[in-house]
Amino acid sequence: MADLYGQSGDDKRPTEVPAIRWEEPPEGPVLVLLDQTRLPAEEVELVCTDASALVEAIGSLAVRGAPLLGIAGAYGVALAAARGFAVDEAADALAGARPTAVNLSVGVRRARDAYQAEVAKGGGPEQGARAALAAARQLHREDAEASTRMAQHGLALLGELLPGGGHRILTHCNTGALVSGGEGTAFAVALAAHRAGQLRRLWVDETRPLLQGARLTAYEAARRGMAYTLLTDNAAGSLFSAGEVDAVLIGADRIAADGSVANKVGSYPLAVLARYHHVPFIVVAPVTTVDPHTPDGASIEVEQRPGFEVTEMAAPQAPVSGAGGGIPVAPLGTQAYNPAFDVTPPELVTAIVTEEGVVSPVTADGLAELCARSGRAATG
Amino acid sequence: MADLYGQSGDDKRPTEVPAIRWEEPPEGPVLVLLDQTRLPAEEVELVCTDASALVEAIGSLAVRGAPLLGIAGAYGVALAAARGFAVDEAADALAGARPTAVNLSVGVRRARDAYQAEVAKGGGPEQGARAALAAARQLHREDAEASTRMAQHGLALLGELLPGGGHRILTHCNTGALVSGGEGTAFAVALAAHRAGQLRRLWVDETRPLLQGARLTAYEAARRGMAYTLLTDNAAGSLFSAGEVDAVLIGADRIAADGSVANKVGSYPLAVLARYHHVPFIVVAPVTTVDPHTPDGASIEVEQRPGFEVTEMAAPQAPVSGAGGGIPVAPLGTQAYNPAFDVTPPELVTAIVTEEGVVSPVTADGLAELCARSGRAATG
Repeated sequence: MADLYGQSGDDKRPTEVPAIRWEEPPEGPVLVLLDQTRLPAEEVELVCTDASALVEAIGSLAVRGAPLLGIAGAYGVALAAARGFAVDEAADALAGARPTAVNLSVGVRRARDAYQAEVAKGGGPEQGARAALAAARQLHREDAEASTRMAQHGLALLGELLPGGGHRILTHCNTGALVSGGEGTAFAVALAAHRAGQLRRLWVDETRPLLQGARLTAYEAARRGMAYTLLTDNAAGSLFSAGEVDAVLIGADRIAADGSVANKVGSYPLAVLARYHHVPFIVVAPVTTVDPHTPDGASIEVEQRPGFEVTEMAAPQAPVSGAGGGIPVAPLGTQAYNPAFDVTPPELVTAIVTEEGVVSPVTADGLAELCARSGRAATG
Repeated sequence: MADLYGQSGDDKRPTEVPAIRWEEPPEGPVLVLLDQTRLPAEEVELVCTDASALVEAIGSLAVRGAPLLGIAGAYGVALAAARGFAVDEAADALAGARPTAVNLSVGVRRARDAYQAEVAKGGGPEQGARAALAAARQLHREDAEASTRMAQHGLALLGELLPGGGHRILTHCNTGALVSGGEGTAFAVALAAHRAGQLRRLWVDETRPLLQGARLTAYEAARRGMAYTLLTDNAAGSLFSAGEVDAVLIGADRIAADGSVANKVGSYPLAVLARYHHVPFIVVAPVTTVDPHTPDGASIEVEQRPGFEVTEMAAPQAPVSGAGGGIPVAPLGTQAYNPAFDVTPPELVTAIVTEEGVVSPVTADGLAELCARSGRAATG
């Protein structure tokens, strides 16, 4: 299968467009977002001058990914404060822009708390705005630092598990700089391996139905000059069978107290394939992803998404014809089963890599210890 | 998961359009094909008045599927003969229209042999044409009968393996009337279960990259009034995990002498999931699919398809923009790994259902016995 390792798409554009940045031009502060709905075709930036523009951008998925949503929410509060808008109102609108993303409301709360504490001290709205911005920047920085530490721990783990180097890593969905204040979670580990000269190939699952792998992970890998190859999700089996996968690296949406991992649909089949082929299956996520209030995998509620994501192909350049705005690929009236994520039980997870260290084997006690070490309560 | 079993798309169009039919209007004989590239959006028939039109239809995938290609090839020879064209020339062009489909050249040869035998007897071209048409019709009928027998054997097997009835069957790719002179292979078994009141749900994998499940199997299931639900290939893991799959039924492109099954990419991951969840994994294929010249799975050459099938979305209604004629979904220059099929080893296959009976467990001896019973040599 030598032809699998040919030249990759290597994007030579010189500068990298960050997913989010705070700017202070003379006209007043703005929040600038890379519009992820236009990737990979175009790098278009959205400039938000108030919180309502940001609410709209969150709703349209121009900005997405749990950690990044938290950062965006915090900056949104800071923006409302700096522009002299009603901070509480803006905070409520932001927190409700996507009700299921817990990080969003956490980020919003952090900036609002900072604002209110400052105002309560008699600092006035201007001081409050500065405090909110400082809180947003702090969250942004913390997330970037967590990425760096996850990448270090993950790279060390790969070195232990695969001492030969030349890693061929399979990943699913998008877990890079587009979902994070830093370089991401699983993708950040692959990127660290690339920089260390130890990444032979990044296998990128396209990740149906929304194609975050094809659209976003391939985009990030090309921008970084990584050796990557795209595949349909169902072609991963052939790679395992041919001995072409050394490790699977994925992120997580939520990790239950017993170590069950909820992540983008398609993760669980990879875990089963990895086990069948004796390949390590590694989850990379910040400690905040561990939810001590969720005891086990069965307690995780799986979001069911609209069927048109499956029965139609989203194609921004094409004329709208389906009910969901895409091109129909199945007969009209076809019902679709479309869970947004699946749950992998702890016994199929080789290791969970966090910024505080690695849990392996994955057990409730190991996770509780990690949470305690990081200052988070393991229960309640 | 009660909502998984809601109303299905039930296509109420009264008449069924056959995949292929021979007509004899006053202007002369024609071969009429259902253009599969336009499904499910439109039921358009292509009328071929000579073999070269059929060659073009085969090349464009308007007609596809191994058994159906054999039937089409045989009718194509009959058409050339009946229209007074050079039979040998037409036969060569037809046999080479898709060089990898062995059934095509077998079907062509059968009709040409019948033509030549008749002419050699001094029957003249008109008699020869009648003989070629008779051979094509015979092949068509045999294939339809094989479908019927596979469906009977498969239904009986389901009854044995799953005595409770109310089967929830997962299938992959398209294996129904669109690839067969009859009702197909795996799909024919599901249809028999439906008619017997024993199909609770047909789970239809969309089957990336070409979406034969979404486009064609969903179309056939809707036309038959079956309870079906479409899913992305990677969502099958969630169904297994939730205990929603009672059996997997797939077809086969080739079966090696040791029982290794080559089928549409994505079949092998289903076999691994089925094994992990103790669910029967059943292959349905005519005896002619068993290739005694291929000793094992490693000997099966896997066709690698163009990367643009993965990096672009085929969308006939959309303006052409990618190199492959579709809408790009990955960065330009992205390399894709795109095997057309994968290989499932015999130890993961619960049973192989053929028109001559069921082989279970799947062993080289069992297959050799089946081939011997059906009059085909098991070796050489």
